[in-house]
Parts: sequence; structure tokens; C-alpha cells
Amino acid sequence: MNEKIKWLREKIRGLDMQGMIVSNPLNVKYLTGIDAEGVLLITRKENYYITDSRYLEDVQSTLTIDDGIIVYNMSDISSYDYENFFSFCENVGFEESYITYATYKNYMQRYKANHLEETDNMIEKQRMIKDEKEIELLTKACELTDQCFTHLLEFIQIGMTEKQIAYEIEKYFLENGAESLSFETIVASGQNSSKPHAKTTDKKIEEGDPITIDFGCKYKGYCSDMTRTIFAGYVPEKVKSVYELVLKNQLQTLNDMKEGASIRILARNVDNDFRLNGYSLVHSLGHGVGLEIHEQPFISSRNDNTLKANMVVTNEPGIYLPGNFGVRIEDTVLITKSGCINLTKSDKNMIIVGK
Amino acid sequence: MNEKIKWLREKIRGLDMQGMIVSNPLNVKYLTGIDAEGVLLITRKENYYITDSRYLEDVQSTLTIDDGIIVYNMSDISSYDYENFFSFCENVGFEESYITYATYKNYMQRYKANHLEETDNMIEKQRMIKDEKEIELLTKACELTDQCFTHLLEFIQIGMTEKQIAYEIEKYFLENGAESLSFETIVASGQNSSKPHAKTTDKKIEEGDPITIDFGCKYKGYCSDMTRTIFAGYVPEKVKSVYELVLKNQLQTLNDMKEGASIRILARNVDNDFRLNGYSLVHSLGHGVGLEIHEQPFISSRNDNTLKANMVVTNEPGIYLPGNFGVRIEDTVLITKSGCINLTKSDKNMIIVGK
Repeated sequence: MNEKIKWLREKIRGLDMQGMIVSNPLNVKYLTGIDAEGVLLITRKENYYITDSRYLEDVQSTLTIDDGIIVYNMSDISSYDYENFFSFCENVGFEESYITYATYKNYMQRYKANHLEETDNMIEKQRMIKDEKEIELLTKACELTDQCFTHLLEFIQIGMTEKQIAYEIEKYFLENGAESLSFETIVASGQNSSKPHAKTTDKKIEEGDPITIDFGCKYKGYCSDMTRTIFAGYVPEKVKSVYELVLKNQLQTLNDMKEGASIRILARNVDNDFRLNGYSLVHSLGHGVGLEIHEQPFISSRNDNTLKANMVVTNEPGIYLPGNFGVRIEDTVLITKSGCINLTKSDKNMIIVGK
Repeated sequence: MNEKIKWLREKIRGLDMQGMIVSNPLNVKYLTGIDAEGVLLITRKENYYITDSRYLEDVQSTLTIDDGIIVYNMSDISSYDYENFFSFCENVGFEESYITYATYKNYMQRYKANHLEETDNMIEKQRMIKDEKEIELLTKACELTDQCFTHLLEFIQIGMTEKQIAYEIEKYFLENGAESLSFETIVASGQNSSKPHAKTTDKKIEEGDPITIDFGCKYKGYCSDMTRTIFAGYVPEKVKSVYELVLKNQLQTLNDMKEGASIRILARNVDNDFRLNGYSLVHSLGHGVGLEIHEQPFISSRNDNTLKANMVVTNEPGIYLPGNFGVRIEDTVLITKSGCINLTKSDKNMIIVGK
């Protein structure tokens, strides 16, 4: 049985549950490597994965005998079989933040469980700590992102639209080994950069525009996330002090991020420094990155936890002056015992493009 | 108050509910035009939409006074306010197939409702029947899809990869007024076409390949869906009879689709004719299309309903010979009282490209 399934079985036992229904495909992928539609059943004795004929071949080739997972085609399973998976179980765990109320009721009926027990995102919480293999894939996704950024610095010209740039990013990723974008690219130029959650538009890049580019890719299921604000032609005077303030705080956060650091204090420090200068931090300072682009831990002043070694999180302070301009600088970083390692390594000084 | 909200209020009353919490953003968009994150509350007296500061401006500009919807910023609402929305209500409806079990429990607590009542996808069911404006947008999405197909016939060359073609489709749509793809494009050539749910790969198009292209775009929120199987260089002899059989059944279905037609019989007729020839229909014959690419009604032999005027559905028979090749032909069609209208109008005869 693999280490992750072993962990889950022990966790379940510790919570006095006799089994668990794992429905979230990302949690299934995390625990087993399986990338399909189906449900993983952890029962008293065995582990089962139930899928349909579309995925059967693929699932069988993903698993080895050591995984200790019995695979079923759902069309071969009777209602009687379903009732037997958890017979004589008092408490069976389920993912209350993933399955709908309708699915919950369906599970209650199908498995004839005495009681389905909430599990408080325990697998998602475990996913915060990445193993060696996961760190390797995240590193690769970040490398591709750096390479794409280098390419963009040559590519971007004044007069191009934001959409053209976003489009080039997707093209670059797909042609260079990424499987997809990790989220919809944001290219926000000029006034558009003043929105923290800007949409990419048909606006053309003009001389003097700050251009905020927030982008990333997925590599073998794992995400990257990076933002840079760069400049078309020249850096307007009004932007410089804001840029320096954001960069200073991004570097300071990088300096402070390590195992044991208080998440709340990290976020509060940035907000405090912004406020001293007449601004504020209007969004989170960062978030976990892994199989999902936004996952736990969320780096905000409302989070009372501390960072742990092998978490991978973003560090993304930003300042936005509505109707005017905005600056955001973001890296994806790996937390270690003694500090943190930037996985995205692109230049963070003010960069001028389109000259 | 707009017609759709009026309909919902009457429906709720008929079901002896005193209110409803609408959480699915597509249902909110359908009912109100609002394209944001938030929740629509239908209460005894008023309609409220609760969102956050990111969307407030956009939502206010979408609504008119006639909509009769009061918009709140969620940060202005106290827990006391939440409790008051449904005070003295016995039954308040919710979308059991959309919200998670955790959200259900959260709603129970937040709104202090006596009882949250399942609503059996009643808004999704209402969404099956499209109004004039919706049909206009669906027609436009289908027109763009036809134009893209015409462009592809010139574009595709032997030696290109499947991904290059998929990529060109996305580029065409974005440059010609669509907001996005309606789903991930399938380009499946040669042997790959033998999988009903193929993934687009780096395989190059070779002479004699059948190429199944399944694609569509979104226009102002509304989806299109079309499939054609075309041929690189020439049509292999072995494919011809299969192609003709699929096309015959696609045309026959088109002929039979109209208000009152039994969905089950439509699907069964195709399966029967395929079986007479030694094949079978391994997937549904079609599905509804609207704000979602796959929505009700599902055109399969398990559906006991009949078609209704102003439904928009796909008609997509296919035959797949594992490891060999496959053929699928799909249109998006509008059902009327007396027949149906193809919204996708591209040529369905065998087309040769790359010559």
C-alpha cells in the first residue's frame, strides 16, 4: 500500500471511523495517482476504486500491485455490493466540502451507511505538505513559467492587444510541454492594471503603460503562479515609488517566509507597511499551490496557522490605485526549515518592453 | 419584475415554499442576467442579490429598476440580517444538486430556516425552453462555429498536429467575437478517432486519416456544439459505408425531431439501425445546449420525456471501431412545433482537406 493511503487509513482509525468515501478527483489523484472519474472507497479491509469503462484501461496502467487498490467497473457492481462495502460500519467519512447535498443523500442510500461523518478537509490539509515528487513537478511548472516570461519580454510590442499577449502565453506553454494553463491568464495594461482581479481585454498596449501579467501553467497536474508588472516603452514617474514599495514588501516577505513563521503576521506586516505609505493590502498575500491553483494554506491575516516545511505558496503583494494603475509582484515559493526558495526566478526589477 | 423571476416566484408558491436561495451562478444569470459571484434570495416580499465589492459596480449596471432586485454588498450584512430574510418561513427552497453538504449546513445556520427544501432542479428544467433572446445568442454562437469550420477546411494541411488544429480553432473564435471555447476542442485523427471521448494529441495528420473535430464556442454566455468527421487527402474505402450509416441516421433524427417526439424513441431508432448493421450507439444521441454545454434534456433511451418547442439540443450519432477509426456527425438544433432547425449549417457530406 502506498504511503499516502497508509496515512489516510491511520488518520481514519484515529478519528474512530471505519471507512471513507473519497470523491474529489484531486484528492484521489493525490492519494493514488489516478487521473479519472470515479470514487475511492477505503473500507475496513481493502481499498477500492470504482470507475467506468472509459477510464478502466488507464486506471489499471497507473496502478501497480503495491498500491493495494482493487479496481471495479461500476457496471459490474450491484446495489447489494454497494451495501456491503461498509456493512457493520458505524461512521464512514465523506468530503462534505466537495459533494453536493444531493450526492450526500444518494451516498446515504446507496451505501446504507449508519452515519456519514464530515472529515473537515483532512486530505486537503495533508496536501499542503508536498513530497519530493510533487516538489519536482511544481519546480518544473515554475521553470516553464520563467521561460515563458523570458519569451514574452522579446515578444511584447506596443500596439499589441492584451488578448494577443495572453494568447501567446497559452501557445508557449502548450508548445513547450505544459498540459494547460493553471488559470485564465490576466494581462492588464494601463488603467486596467488598477483592478486586482482584472479581465484580459482587447485594449492595445500603449507607450507608458504598466502591464500586469499574472499567469501560470500545469505540468503533470501541478500548477505554477507568477505575476510581474512590466512597462511599455518607459516607466512613468508616478509608478516608481509604488513599484518600489511593492517590491520591498515582496522581498521582505520572502525573507520572512520559513517553517514556523506566523501567516497572520506575514500578511499584517505587508498591510502595515502599505498603510504607513497611504495604501493597503486589498487581497490575500498569497495561497497554497499544488494540484489546485488556489489551495490551503491561504496567506491572510485571518489565518492563525504557521508555515510548515515543504508547503508551496505564493507571495504576491499588490497595490491598486482605482482608475489609475496597479502593481503586483508574485512568486511561487517552497518553504523550508530555514527559509524559502523561490521556484519562479524571473527578474523583479522594473523591466521595459517594446522598445 | 422580469418574467423569469415572476415565473420562479409563482413556481415557489405552487410548491408551498415561502422563498428560495439560488446559488448556482448559471441559474442566477438565467434569471437576472447577472454574471458574478453571489447569491439570489427570493423572499416573501422582495428579491435580493448579495455579492461582494468586486462585482458590485458590474451588477448594478446589469440591473434596471424593473428587475426589482435589491443588491447588497455582503460586507454590509450582519448575521441578524441573514436571519431576517426568511423569518417565519416554513419551507425555503435550495439547489440540492449544486451546493455542497458543507454549504447546506452553513445555510441552515446562517438563515436560521426551519427547513430547507429540495427543488429537484426546477430552474435547470425551466432553462430547457429557450426564449427569443437566448435563441438569438445560441444562433450567433453556431454561426461563428460554421465560420470557423469553413476557415479550417482551408487551414488544415497534412503533417500538422491535432493540437495545432485545436489551437487554430481557439484563435479563430477569440479573434472573431466569441468569449471562449464552450468546451475543450477534440481533434482526433486516424486511430484516435476510434475513441468516443478522444483527447487531442501531438499526432500528425497523415494521408488517409479520418479527422473528427468536435468543437464549439461561447457567445455572451451561450454555447454551440458541432462535430464533423473530415478526411485528409482521400476517403479510405473502409470508412465510406460507416460514414453513410452515421449520416443517414443523423439526417433521419433531424427529420424526426420536433415538439412531442419521444426522446427515448429517437435514441432507440438510431441504436436499432446501427445494430442492424453490426454496430451500436455507445453514447447518448445528444444533449441540451444553453448556458452550459451539456444540460437538460439528455437525449438517450433512458429519458422518458418528449421534446418541446424552443429546446436547443444536439443530434450527434457516432460509430467507433476500437483501434481502427470512428465517425461522428453533430449539429446543434432548435426544436419547433413542426420540426427542427439546424443552427449549425456546415456541409455534412464527406469533405477532403489538405490536398
